[in-house]
Amino acid sequence: MSYDNFKLFKVRIERGVAFVTIDNPPMNLLNMQMIMEFATLAQTIQNDDNVRVIVFNSADPDFFIAHFDVSGLVVMPDEAAPKKSSLENTVHMINETYRTMPKVSIAKVEGIVRGGGFEFIQSFDMIFGELGKAVFAQPEIGVGIIPGGGGTIRIPRSVGRRRAMEVVLGGHDFPAEIAELYGLINRALTPDKLTLYVENLAYRIASHPAESLAIAKKSVLAGVELPIVDALLEEQYLFGQAVALPSSKARMNMFLNAEGQSREMEANQNTLLEEQEVNPFAMLEEKEK
Amino acid sequence: MSYDNFKLFKVRIERGVAFVTIDNPPMNLLNMQMIMEFATLAQTIQNDDNVRVIVFNSADPDFFIAHFDVSGLVVMPDEAAPKKSSLENTVHMINETYRTMPKVSIAKVEGIVRGGGFEFIQSFDMIFGELGKAVFAQPEIGVGIIPGGGGTIRIPRSVGRRRAMEVVLGGHDFPAEIAELYGLINRALTPDKLTLYVENLAYRIASHPAESLAIAKKSVLAGVELPIVDALLEEQYLFGQAVALPSSKARMNMFLNAEGQSREMEANQNTLLEEQEVNPFAMLEEKEK
Amino acid sequence: MSYDNFKLFKVRIERGVAFVTIDNPPMNLLNMQMIMEFATLAQTIQNDDNVRVIVFNSADPDFFIAHFDVSGLVVMPDEAAPKKSSLENTVHMINETYRTMPKVSIAKVEGIVRGGGFEFIQSFDMIFGELGKAVFAQPEIGVGIIPGGGGTIRIPRSVGRRRAMEVVLGGHDFPAEIAELYGLINRALTPDKLTLYVENLAYRIASHPAESLAIAKKSVLAGVELPIVDALLEEQYLFGQAVALPSSKARMNMFLNAEGQSREMEANQNTLLEEQEVNPFAMLEEKEK
Repeated sequence: MSYDNFKLFKVRIERGVAFVTIDNPPMNLLNMQMIMEFATLAQTIQNDDNVRVIVFNSADPDFFIAHFDVSGLVVMPDEAAPKKSSLENTVHMINETYRTMPKVSIAKVEGIVRGGGFEFIQSFDMIFGELGKAVFAQPEIGVGIIPGGGGTIRIPRSVGRRRAMEVVLGGHDFPAEIAELYGLINRALTPDKLTLYVENLAYRIASHPAESLAIAKKSVLAGVELPIVDALLEEQYLFGQAVALPSSKARMNMFLNAEGQSREMEANQNTLLEEQEVNPFAMLEEKEK
Repeated sequence: MSYDNFKLFKVRIERGVAFVTIDNPPMNLLNMQMIMEFATLAQTIQNDDNVRVIVFNSADPDFFIAHFDVSGLVVMPDEAAPKKSSLENTVHMINETYRTMPKVSIAKVEGIVRGGGFEFIQSFDMIFGELGKAVFAQPEIGVGIIPGGGGTIRIPRSVGRRRAMEVVLGGHDFPAEIAELYGLINRALTPDKLTLYVENLAYRIASHPAESLAIAKKSVLAGVELPIVDALLEEQYLFGQAVALPSSKARMNMFLNAEGQSREMEANQNTLLEEQEVNPFAMLEEKEK
Repeated sequence: MSYDNFKLFKVRIERGVAFVTIDNPPMNLLNMQMIMEFATLAQTIQNDDNVRVIVFNSADPDFFIAHFDVSGLVVMPDEAAPKKSSLENTVHMINETYRTMPKVSIAKVEGIVRGGGFEFIQSFDMIFGELGKAVFAQPEIGVGIIPGGGGTIRIPRSVGRRRAMEVVLGGHDFPAEIAELYGLINRALTPDKLTLYVENLAYRIASHPAESLAIAKKSVLAGVELPIVDALLEEQYLFGQAVALPSSKARMNMFLNAEGQSREMEANQNTLLEEQEVNPFAMLEEKEK
């Protein structure tokens, strides 16, 4: 796979993780070119067996993504389109691709992310923000419009109706610590811990079998969207799929043979906030290839 | 519009915000008269183009609303009514009116709010509480009944099943900081910050176009209630509506012409915790009239 | 009722609360025997009018429940079962029993709980954890499988999609304070406060009428699972049931006669973090018998 043709970001692959650094000066304004590159990237990564996790950050220390280019919105039709029965909006389609694809996406936000940029990463599997530096907002209402890339839908699903109303109707800025309190992001961490945690987490996830990750993600998506019993039936089915994988049997046997299921071993705790040892299954995976 | 006929609260309108101060000594007990006044207020405000936001507080420093008058409950029928197919309960109907109406409602809670009073504000768009002073509870179970104004429904939707069970089955008091941690309220703030933030937020929201606010609120409500793709389709449709408004086009052009979309301007952050300058769009809106 | 035949836990009944202490050395590994005892316990307690609340803790200071015995998983079929239309998985069935039964369940977690053990208590009505000691994780992905006892379904419903993805795809440990921040548990408390709060809460809940508790729990379950108007209709119906109970009328009258509905009495606050007086309704209940 080649990741050299992107104009607005750089890609570096390491141990199953694609590190994508957005770089569109002067402030990473989101425009159709960037959206098309995000679409191409998703497609490329879905076809790349060497990548299981994508981590996005920004080359600009102050801006992750400013927001969608307003000059692209001001020229939109003066007459609203009727209600559609399928998602025709390109932004919606690409955001949904990231939410549902069998690869894991993580945003590492060290600066300002607003509007369409914030909506893009809301479709990711995880968002981490730098304490004291990252800022999140949906400022659309200030110019009379509303978030159009899923913000009015994904925010209430994460933080509840009343906090979503505050974000969407206020349109003001939420620093990382409030974003963490509200659940707009997973966690706010100091700069050193942020890098350590995100890298440890990304490499750890990438050490898990690709098929297992795809099954696990699918089950969590069922968990948020289906009625409780339907969701449990889906998990029951997917659990059966995961446990039947030869790679799972190999890992479970390796775990048992290495006395993993012992009080001594199980007493070890790992919150991913310290340097990690090499995953013991990495060796196994080499053999499987 | 006249706001002089209410017996149980005072209303003051300023810059698009209706400040409603509940005043029903000795402890703002919720009764049918107060509920009827809340209904009349909702109707009046929905017809008043000068009001976009309602902020409720209390004249009593210790009680926001005590709870629903138990002497009105003890006389209810000894035989339960069969299950109905529509909301016949007056309290449910009025609470749903506040949740769904195209005006924005904010509760500023500086004292105790329990039972039906807490349920009333759960239907609002936002709740802010005074740190160290505001207290929230659903004490109904203590006298053998359950919250009947939406509490058993709205609380789990905001804070999840297990925290809702604690609130509803325990019936005890939750101070502002725990209410914030759980997501029962938006935020707990010290007295000075509470007033500053709520006023800044209310005036800011009221500076946004009325039609845009109605569309944004509708989209967030879809976001909490519809399946994901249906919800995104609704947002797609409503986004088209908002972007087609002449007032939105005017604001977007004004934003672009004023170099709003520049790194320098976008680097400014506003968390609404300091004195605000006059909104630049206020002038524009005067012209639109 | 006899609670003497359980091999893997001890049961002590006091004032309507069953205190269940799990004791399966060397680390409370979850296996089919323990699951069967959980099933028997649920059945016994559902038939025991003297028990309204169950509090689980562990005899092992370091482990609440380690996780499900991997040696029981490694022997599962190499071919996955097709999708079923009913819950056939024993673990799912028992967890659902705890979630839906008309008794209240509380987990008091003072050590490590992972995998199937964590999933078991996710089905409870409340989870409290010891600050600095309790640890929560779904480590299944590490051996290629996924949580199969409801974890992929219940976690996103409590903490949202992105935090659930972090827990399920990372598989690492979450200490009590992060579990509280995320909403994986109700609250993290220091050891002394944990015991005080859980006991106060359990005894308080057990002082409420059994029928009222069953109705309240049913209404909250409707609140998480049904569309908003259907849920409010269910609450409207259940509220009518609760208010019509003779025991509710008796409590409301006792409350009114004792001047409970007075500013002085209502100003008292109770966050259950201090020693409790005997519940005034306990006497009433004795008379009702």
